[in-house]
Amino acid sequence: MVKVIQLIVDNTAGVLSRISGLFSRRGYNIESITAGITADPHYSRITIVTSGDEAILEQIEKQVGKLIDVRDIRVLEPDDSVYRELVLIKVKVGDDKRQALISVCDVFRTKIVDITKDSMIIEVTGAQSKINAFIEMLQDYEILEIARTGIAGLRRGSDGVVYL
Amino acid sequence: MVKVIQLIVDNTAGVLSRISGLFSRRGYNIESITAGITADPHYSRITIVTSGDEAILEQIEKQVGKLIDVRDIRVLEPDDSVYRELVLIKVKVGDDKRQALISVCDVFRTKIVDITKDSMIIEVTGAQSKINAFIEMLQDYEILEIARTGIAGLRRGSDGVVYL
Repeated sequence: MVKVIQLIVDNTAGVLSRISGLFSRRGYNIESITAGITADPHYSRITIVTSGDEAILEQIEKQVGKLIDVRDIRVLEPDDSVYRELVLIKVKVGDDKRQALISVCDVFRTKIVDITKDSMIIEVTGAQSKINAFIEMLQDYEILEIARTGIAGLRRGSDGVVYL
Repeated sequence: MVKVIQLIVDNTAGVLSRISGLFSRRGYNIESITAGITADPHYSRITIVTSGDEAILEQIEKQVGKLIDVRDIRVLEPDDSVYRELVLIKVKVGDDKRQALISVCDVFRTKIVDITKDSMIIEVTGAQSKINAFIEMLQDYEILEIARTGIAGLRRGSDGVVYL
């Protein structure tokens, strides 16, 4: 089971290390983590994708909520949240297959952000299912490098907004 | 001075905590951090945006490079790299100003990923300068929430690719 947890934390130097330290000490899995300041620079929003069974996920919520820097913790449920990830993919591609690759990129509405004689960097954003489908489509090409940001998410609608 | 550092690390449970712990113990600043597995699931790529003077940045490179999980460390120089960030912005907007906001979104080629009677979630991707310019344009609206992924980056071209 995968869960997306959103934390609002004080924007202090050690907060990320305390949170990731808690996860690693207790053997909780972090599939991805993103962190950035909110509209109020006193606070950071940290989005963690974690997995485990129901009991472990409950423990995580409880333990993380106890940390002093953590102002708010909530689970972003898939039904009422928007998740997005950005991935940069560098593909080896020369003159012979470039046009075919560009056509695939168009279908997925990706952006080509760098191109050389023998390579291309493609930016793809969306839900993870779309990103994985796109990477699947690239199996005929040689992928040189991938850089993923991890998921950022927000609850839909304007209810329950406490922190910016 | 801001520097974007790219690490290739073993994909183990505690690696993120060891790296962020080193930063916090030594008082190094983390402006943003993103982590995700590479095309080879044994390795994760971590991109850290940090700041400080030349001497501090040199120290960071040296200290981080010493960690046992770290397989590769390199600075992504702005001239030969692509940086991208994804930001979700929830704006309070009703019938009266919605059309004007959609026009601004079009100019910046953002995506509107959620819309309700009184709010909108906008996805914007790009270099930080573009994202900041867009947020600047939203000053006439009430921003409810912002979720930033932090920067993911790759070097341009196909030279020097060691890890996927």
